[in-house]
Amino acid sequence: MRLVIVGGVAGGASAAARARRLSEAAEIVLFERGPDASFANCGLPYYLGGEIPDRGKLLVTSPAVLKDRYNLDLRTNTEVVKIDRAARSVTARRAADGSTYDLSYDALILAPGAEPIRPPIPGIDLPNVFTLRNLPDVDRIKAAMDRGAGRATLIGGGFIGLELAENFIRRGIETTLVELQDQVLPPLDREMSTPLAAAVRGRGVRLLLGDSAEAIRATGDGLAIGLRSGVSIGADMVVVGVGVRPENALAKAAGLEIGERGGIRVDDRMRTSDPSIFAVGDAVEVRDFPSGAPAQVPLAGPANRQGRIAADNVFGLDSRYRGTQGTAIVGFFEHVAAITGASEKALRKQGRSHQKVYIHANQHAGYYPGARPMTLKLLFEAPSGKILGAQAVGQEGVDNRINALAMAIQAGLTVFDLEESELAYAPQFGSAKDPVNMAGFVASNVLRGLVRQVHAEDLGAGDLAVASIVDVRTPKEYAAGRIEGAANIPLEELRGRLDEIPRDRPVVVHCQVGMRGYMAARVLRDHGIDAANLAGGYKTYRMHHPDAKL
Amino acid sequence: MRLVIVGGVAGGASAAARARRLSEAAEIVLFERGPDASFANCGLPYYLGGEIPDRGKLLVTSPAVLKDRYNLDLRTNTEVVKIDRAARSVTARRAADGSTYDLSYDALILAPGAEPIRPPIPGIDLPNVFTLRNLPDVDRIKAAMDRGAGRATLIGGGFIGLELAENFIRRGIETTLVELQDQVLPPLDREMSTPLAAAVRGRGVRLLLGDSAEAIRATGDGLAIGLRSGVSIGADMVVVGVGVRPENALAKAAGLEIGERGGIRVDDRMRTSDPSIFAVGDAVEVRDFPSGAPAQVPLAGPANRQGRIAADNVFGLDSRYRGTQGTAIVGFFEHVAAITGASEKALRKQGRSHQKVYIHANQHAGYYPGARPMTLKLLFEAPSGKILGAQAVGQEGVDNRINALAMAIQAGLTVFDLEESELAYAPQFGSAKDPVNMAGFVASNVLRGLVRQVHAEDLGAGDLAVASIVDVRTPKEYAAGRIEGAANIPLEELRGRLDEIPRDRPVVVHCQVGMRGYMAARVLRDHGIDAANLAGGYKTYRMHHPDAKL
Repeated sequence: MRLVIVGGVAGGASAAARARRLSEAAEIVLFERGPDASFANCGLPYYLGGEIPDRGKLLVTSPAVLKDRYNLDLRTNTEVVKIDRAARSVTARRAADGSTYDLSYDALILAPGAEPIRPPIPGIDLPNVFTLRNLPDVDRIKAAMDRGAGRATLIGGGFIGLELAENFIRRGIETTLVELQDQVLPPLDREMSTPLAAAVRGRGVRLLLGDSAEAIRATGDGLAIGLRSGVSIGADMVVVGVGVRPENALAKAAGLEIGERGGIRVDDRMRTSDPSIFAVGDAVEVRDFPSGAPAQVPLAGPANRQGRIAADNVFGLDSRYRGTQGTAIVGFFEHVAAITGASEKALRKQGRSHQKVYIHANQHAGYYPGARPMTLKLLFEAPSGKILGAQAVGQEGVDNRINALAMAIQAGLTVFDLEESELAYAPQFGSAKDPVNMAGFVASNVLRGLVRQVHAEDLGAGDLAVASIVDVRTPKEYAAGRIEGAANIPLEELRGRLDEIPRDRPVVVHCQVGMRGYMAARVLRDHGIDAANLAGGYKTYRMHHPDAKL
Repeated sequence: MRLVIVGGVAGGASAAARARRLSEAAEIVLFERGPDASFANCGLPYYLGGEIPDRGKLLVTSPAVLKDRYNLDLRTNTEVVKIDRAARSVTARRAADGSTYDLSYDALILAPGAEPIRPPIPGIDLPNVFTLRNLPDVDRIKAAMDRGAGRATLIGGGFIGLELAENFIRRGIETTLVELQDQVLPPLDREMSTPLAAAVRGRGVRLLLGDSAEAIRATGDGLAIGLRSGVSIGADMVVVGVGVRPENALAKAAGLEIGERGGIRVDDRMRTSDPSIFAVGDAVEVRDFPSGAPAQVPLAGPANRQGRIAADNVFGLDSRYRGTQGTAIVGFFEHVAAITGASEKALRKQGRSHQKVYIHANQHAGYYPGARPMTLKLLFEAPSGKILGAQAVGQEGVDNRINALAMAIQAGLTVFDLEESELAYAPQFGSAKDPVNMAGFVASNVLRGLVRQVHAEDLGAGDLAVASIVDVRTPKEYAAGRIEGAANIPLEELRGRLDEIPRDRPVVVHCQVGMRGYMAARVLRDHGIDAANLAGGYKTYRMHHPDAKL
């Protein structure tokens, strides 16, 4: 039995290790086109910033361990250039001399990954224009830094763009970040990304949203990046991180079925349209969980688990992949943003009806030092309450809550279940009513009809165009920033000032984060006024309108 | 409609706030025996240590807010001393002058909490012998510290004992901790508590396990605590934290049904045996989730949620309490231990069959600076894999994983589901294979029969009395500490040294944490030797045998 694996990083390395544990006798040949197998792809930006000072740390499992412990036949610098499905063999080419040879297989696992997209703009191939995928890439960027590159332009404000921005800033590099969309971190809903955008600017990054590079040209002292907006940016280096495209050339040439977005099509056992060939990792088309729609989700966790599942199936175990939830997280200095499940924009695209709530809470008890605010957005179905997605932005504790909610989504739990979740509480770790519980409380209140919500994006339109907005915060909070046209009646005075609330038009109440607004809406309802509460209060409003002036 | 609530802290305060949100018209009277409503019980130790410098921070919600925002009729320093169920009225006594008055109710919610147990030993009522429940208690301890108490003895090594030990050490107080059981943190299984015991000793606390105070007497310069072992300890103050007992006197006198362990009996709507009377918090008997057995679990989170549920039912909403999972967490300086669901000892007591795995993993990618080891113990049913309980001990990230597993238990997930969990990964937050996934992998391997496990406590007995133990770690690891009688064959050499493995007796292989041992067991199985892997490796063995000499 010979198992051939193409690609030696996350999915391929996992497949190889699992395969060996399942079969001592199998011959396992692991081809890796590059010089390194099993390196820490996700650590690359932190090596550039010096957080990971030792390049050797980026090699997760050394070639010696792969050979001695796992008894793998590792062939680096060797690219598989052809699959002969009829003969069940691959053709491999040695980078050193270009020579090729054929090797037959009983089972083949493809884990070629994805390649960074290089937009076809003039100058994209100039020296000092980089992408970041592997150790040779990181070495090239490091070399440019060592040569004194003091100005960097990052094209793309996604995960890699933000991570590189942090690390360039750590190195004192003047950094510009250009993102085509009008937000950083496009997988998140826009309003959830605005605190991160503020943090990026706060650290001195020049952030240009809704713009894109049209051309790069060499100048006397470096590069000039011309943007669609007409702006020109000077830089010593450019790193392009605008997404990846599945490496499907080998699979395509072999006639394997390919999905619409270029991913190798697999079933839930990670088997391609050829039963002897499996594929895993960034190169494959996955099912979005729970919607079931085909998707390309290049993430390390799913790649690792898929590798394991492919190996299981090669050796006759019945392992299935349930789909990818898209749980992802990014840090930018002390700031953290994370997502699991569907975003609101994804649900809109799918035409799937949903509701949402926002809560703003501290990661741990407010009375314990170090409490930091966090915003949690929860998307769910009505009336079932089934949780569809969650996003969080804050500092400490974001990972914690997104993990709990990732588990809830995996399990098909509802917002009513979140009311009852029993998470760890001591003052330095959480709250007796954890942010996850709070999200459940608010969502359940909405679904039970205890409160009617309106959303920031709906103000000023439709019925709400003539709404009376009542800000129930303190006069001090009101003075520090408010929604245009809002009247201020502090919650504590509301019961005595009911006559100031108009009864001839819609009433929207709001506070800072939504809690006092909810109370106010309850008070008014009891007096016959069906006021709606602005979801997430003024804080959420400002996330939607980060540049509002009042 | 008049709702009377007895007890103004966690459960009572939550009930009152929820009640007001549900009904603007109801009259809500909140009786609190002590001087403070809604104070931060769980923060008290940290005020003593100075982490929370401002006593005012311990008042979570001020009386003014309770009155002005929630329109509550708060009556502090007023104890409800009698319930007249027939008349639906309570008798309240003012602490100031001992005068009493009656107040009728339409619904009554009892949230009296639990009182610290004071063991009936000589000297328990001496000055400077304290318990810690409320602000007057904390003021008394603080006063003793301000008078220069430099030596403290803590009786009880549970949550409060450990938290007080940390905070006394912070204040430079010489601290002795005496615990009746042979471990700290009795809710955890003993081996999971040993790293914490080492940490406690490492910070200079004199830790006396398996001992108890038999008498306290006043001496010339303080107190002398005589232990069962004969040891006598000198101290300036003693704090007793040996558990709490539900405050059931009022309920008992009113003829309400009381559980075997003293908790007020309630249904899943938090209703007592009198349909007009509800009870919540530490005073009630709950159902253990998921076993359904009656239990007393004094925790703030459940108390808060129960208060909310009682209020819901008072106002006609159909809210149910699903039971208490017992999720709890404690910090001791940088060390953290947490539990959710059943412990192994609880399962044994219930006679419930179960299996277990241990994993040792870092809280985030090992190549990113700051990685710290964590031990995770997972208890589950065979063959279903249903998760029954989890415990973790480590530093950062313990809360995160216990929360994810708490959610998994709530949802009834299995270890097979954990294989597929998609948790947040970036190198500073987790691993592509998160510790939660790893626990799922190991447990699934066991249930699928890919590996046979033995446990540290089973070595040396039964069939294993004659077992050959093979340590597959490196010679360096072996030299630094090993299991008595183990032979050393590093995994990398195992394939070439198979003839050294005896075939006439049971073989147990082990490594440091269980992974190389698993690989070794797989190698040997392929060569016809059904070796068992020592669960969690030498590291788990040492948790079971912290004083082993080799």
